[in-house]
Amino acid sequence: MVDGNWDRVWINAHLATMTPGADDYGSVPDAAIAVRGESIAWIGPAVVAARIASAAGVPIHDATGLWITPGLIDCHTHIVYGGNRVAEFEQRLRGASYEEIARAGGGIQSTVRATRAESPERLLASARSRIGRLLAEGVTTIEIKSGYGLDEATERRMLAVAREIGREWPVSVRTTYLGLHALPVEYRERRSAYVDAVSGAWLEGIAASGLADAVDAFCESIAFTPAETERFLGAARRAGLAIHVHAGQLSDLGAAELAARHGALSADHLEYVGAEGVRALAAAGTVAVLLPCAYFTLRQRDPPPVDALRAAGVPLAVATDCNPGTSPCTSILLALAIACTAFGLTPGEALRGATANAARALGVAHDRGTLEVGKRADFALWAIDRPAELCYALGANPCVGVVYRGRLRDPV
Amino acid sequence: MVDGNWDRVWINAHLATMTPGADDYGSVPDAAIAVRGESIAWIGPAVVAARIASAAGVPIHDATGLWITPGLIDCHTHIVYGGNRVAEFEQRLRGASYEEIARAGGGIQSTVRATRAESPERLLASARSRIGRLLAEGVTTIEIKSGYGLDEATERRMLAVAREIGREWPVSVRTTYLGLHALPVEYRERRSAYVDAVSGAWLEGIAASGLADAVDAFCESIAFTPAETERFLGAARRAGLAIHVHAGQLSDLGAAELAARHGALSADHLEYVGAEGVRALAAAGTVAVLLPCAYFTLRQRDPPPVDALRAAGVPLAVATDCNPGTSPCTSILLALAIACTAFGLTPGEALRGATANAARALGVAHDRGTLEVGKRADFALWAIDRPAELCYALGANPCVGVVYRGRLRDPV
Repeated sequence: MVDGNWDRVWINAHLATMTPGADDYGSVPDAAIAVRGESIAWIGPAVVAARIASAAGVPIHDATGLWITPGLIDCHTHIVYGGNRVAEFEQRLRGASYEEIARAGGGIQSTVRATRAESPERLLASARSRIGRLLAEGVTTIEIKSGYGLDEATERRMLAVAREIGREWPVSVRTTYLGLHALPVEYRERRSAYVDAVSGAWLEGIAASGLADAVDAFCESIAFTPAETERFLGAARRAGLAIHVHAGQLSDLGAAELAARHGALSADHLEYVGAEGVRALAAAGTVAVLLPCAYFTLRQRDPPPVDALRAAGVPLAVATDCNPGTSPCTSILLALAIACTAFGLTPGEALRGATANAARALGVAHDRGTLEVGKRADFALWAIDRPAELCYALGANPCVGVVYRGRLRDPV
Repeated sequence: MVDGNWDRVWINAHLATMTPGADDYGSVPDAAIAVRGESIAWIGPAVVAARIASAAGVPIHDATGLWITPGLIDCHTHIVYGGNRVAEFEQRLRGASYEEIARAGGGIQSTVRATRAESPERLLASARSRIGRLLAEGVTTIEIKSGYGLDEATERRMLAVAREIGREWPVSVRTTYLGLHALPVEYRERRSAYVDAVSGAWLEGIAASGLADAVDAFCESIAFTPAETERFLGAARRAGLAIHVHAGQLSDLGAAELAARHGALSADHLEYVGAEGVRALAAAGTVAVLLPCAYFTLRQRDPPPVDALRAAGVPLAVATDCNPGTSPCTSILLALAIACTAFGLTPGEALRGATANAARALGVAHDRGTLEVGKRADFALWAIDRPAELCYALGANPCVGVVYRGRLRDPV
């Protein structure tokens, strides 16, 4: 389509298309990007675009001096929840042990209590400021997990609120039923019954109602065993849902291998994964989602084996893991910065991790994550001199505009 | 002054006065703070203030649900500089060694070249966005160091630009002549001559012209020896300037003891300081300024000995260390968060470190750093439920207003 049948066009920008190209960013200098409807209609030299647009009377946005990237994708969040955990954060720093905090009702169970007590309206209201901060940093797609309900009604309520976020605000939401997050207190003596419920009637109902795009399970020594995880994932596959797995955050239980065996879209965290797990992820095409803000908050010392993942060709993504306990983070740019500094990702890898590879981790790479003709016109405009600046500064937000589904988005 | 002779009053707020009190924050719930001229005129119960103000016709600001803290103080920055170091950041993450980068003209010398080449106008313009981000987070006083000139003219230009920032924008600036930061290339074979110049004519001229409030020296294996530092600090004391020292960032050369011996206001970094140094700081009343964003950026593994500093009664401050190489950080709140998570400060200690103790580190505690009658009416309003939230969230900025010298400040 070079006939100027465009709705609008941005000219004089440098594009980080994030497609394979001359450099880490698929850079195209002095370029233009034209939109028709919700899609990218044309990408090419700015001078050509200006000529076509002028002749055809297409509205022109001058993006001189700006970089344009794909809209950022935060592919792992728990951004819907009740309460917060700041009191516990303070208690811990004043010397209380994890055990004392747990005995006093703290930890994930405190978020479960608070979330169960909230109405959908209040859950939505409390997520609003967090969502707003992500959107201000150029995010156009976000994944949201349930997992603080641990009963059928609250899990469904969380997923419904997540869907509502995508209707109410200019952002695309992918929802994940995190059935196996923690064992609820009412099932403390009945683990197997809980896994049965999660994998049975609750899952079927959630799948049938279209509330979830995928499932997730926390396979870890302090959460659920590989065997329990396996039951849940098997049921999810039969229900036609995509799969994510919290794998290797604190120890290597073989969860990466398990995720790969089930054709998971992503295995997330991966501080502890061995050579077998890395090979399995590579063979399955499963994305490794790195969560540097949780690593930072938990004061972990062993980063994920980035060299091994890279060498094996495992696609790397980066996300905030926004949650009230282990990652109270609403800055995808900070996640990219920590991924570089603490994990050793290059800025190009980090940015690919919040664009092309994040799209792949969510199963939406066919229409998002890169700047290409035919893909959704979701992109962010940045006042920077080079893309690596997005991963370098701590506390800056150079985003000066966001186009979502072809239209400039107002601040939320 | 309870007669209502006030210019304006904020009511229905919770105050974190940061004075010794019932809790870590000197909290006063349901309070009011009245201003006359540039000073705090009255602090007391909101209901009393409302009655007085209504009777006297004093303008009332309703701060229901907000917390008010002293205006934040960033007591260690290198925020005025030319260029940036993002290219070097990317090269390093792509595998270049420090040595290769240095051979290619990178490192601090690249910032020196860029800074020497900049006009005052351009230095001011490039600092503007960084200053703006700090101000948006409730900062009302900032310290700014020279040290990227390494020649007399550029050092003076940097200090003049720092002074200009305090005139142009609604923020108080304390300036520091960082004479001993790095050895400039033109003195490579003449270390002693450089220390002579810095400690002699340059220092005298800078002191006489009132460009600097204090001096600073980088006493470190890769910078200047204790003996060189000693010469400079002695000259600075004779010139009547206050003293800061970059001490123990990478190794323990006894710089903390040296700082204490010279009655330094602060010793900064302190990842490496022994029991002797800690005792000396405590005895001298020197503030330990912790710089967690530099620690993070440099991937350091040994935090400052916070327990020992605390036990000895050394006042702890926290600052951004904003600079283009080792701390590209413009978020004082992020510095507080890292100070808690990586260094183990309590949120109360961290917040005191950017208020009361930061004021002390700059020698301005007589009129800033706490909410007390008679002190400067510099304070920040926050949409938070408890003060610890300022240290908990990563990437949030709950600042909803700043009063500077008694007046609500417009966003910069």
